[in-house]
Amino acid sequence: MSAIPPQAKKVFSGVIFDVYQWEQELYDGSTATFEKLKRPATLTVIPVIDGKIAIGYEEQPTKGPFLSLLGGRLETGEEPLSGAKRELLEEAGLESDEWELWNKTQPYTKIDWDIFVYIAKNCRDVGSTQHDPGEKIEVRMLDFDEFIEAVLSEQFYGREFTEKVLRMKLDPPKLQAFKKQILG
Amino acid sequence: MSAIPPQAKKVFSGVIFDVYQWEQELYDGSTATFEKLKRPATLTVIPVIDGKIAIGYEEQPTKGPFLSLLGGRLETGEEPLSGAKRELLEEAGLESDEWELWNKTQPYTKIDWDIFVYIAKNCRDVGSTQHDPGEKIEVRMLDFDEFIEAVLSEQFYGREFTEKVLRMKLDPPKLQAFKKQILG
Repeated sequence: MSAIPPQAKKVFSGVIFDVYQWEQELYDGSTATFEKLKRPATLTVIPVIDGKIAIGYEEQPTKGPFLSLLGGRLETGEEPLSGAKRELLEEAGLESDEWELWNKTQPYTKIDWDIFVYIAKNCRDVGSTQHDPGEKIEVRMLDFDEFIEAVLSEQFYGREFTEKVLRMKLDPPKLQAFKKQILG
Repeated sequence: MSAIPPQAKKVFSGVIFDVYQWEQELYDGSTATFEKLKRPATLTVIPVIDGKIAIGYEEQPTKGPFLSLLGGRLETGEEPLSGAKRELLEEAGLESDEWELWNKTQPYTKIDWDIFVYIAKNCRDVGSTQHDPGEKIEVRMLDFDEFIEAVLSEQFYGREFTEKVLRMKLDPPKLQAFKKQILG
């Protein structure tokens, strides 16, 4: 839904967002300037350690405090999985050898923006975090029910994931399968 | 959550999106360039006519077909309610004297973007639509259960509203109150 057509021209390069425009033919044969944005992918992780799920309780200079999946922004030239591993290590000091891509979405039609959700099982705590000076993160360990409650709370940031969890909550066998997928 | 600070400078003016940047002090005293976008508000309407709710089945040059609440984009200098009335008339040929603001949200932290949801009761069909050459819209009349099903379908565009309906579905008295608020 969010593809930027090949003939689009980049008209602005920002810190996060680039702006593209192109002339689009409309249904009456006239044309109009269409506009879409592109931003780096967001990498999020459901890290499992000793039957608990780690999530972030975070504050940023213009936002928060809020709860969210751990993770961050893909860097230039980086593979999504490598970025997810880097973010999990930086934010929570966790490593895993069992990574699985749970979901990838493009939530917003006017922005070329991928959101990845990974599951990282059997994490080990390697102890050293490396926080960005633009964030304060406290890692919280939750059991499955607490995790679901956190994702559905008003404080949780990440509406695409919240929507998926709401849909699973309306379909209990799916929520049960999700629990099994995460916790084994 | 999405406020652009007063010291921010507009660094790009687009067709839909304007880009703002400012120097933000971080937690270690260093600074970084922060960036947020601004776009016109989206006005959406739940129009009720003879116990049915009108929704749009729409196609746009780069998107669709999809289902959505009727409505569109706020124009420069326009009041949100006036814009909602204009859009309902243009898209569906409907008018009402009983308007109510149901909800206003800012769904996305990096975009200053309001989404309004209005209820328009006792609509009358004044017959003349005026479609934008950039959209094809077919108006569908649904009863309440069909409306909820449409909003939860994969074809529906408007995740903020979908999330609200999912939450009401998990809390049946709230869904019942919503039905009563719409249909009386």
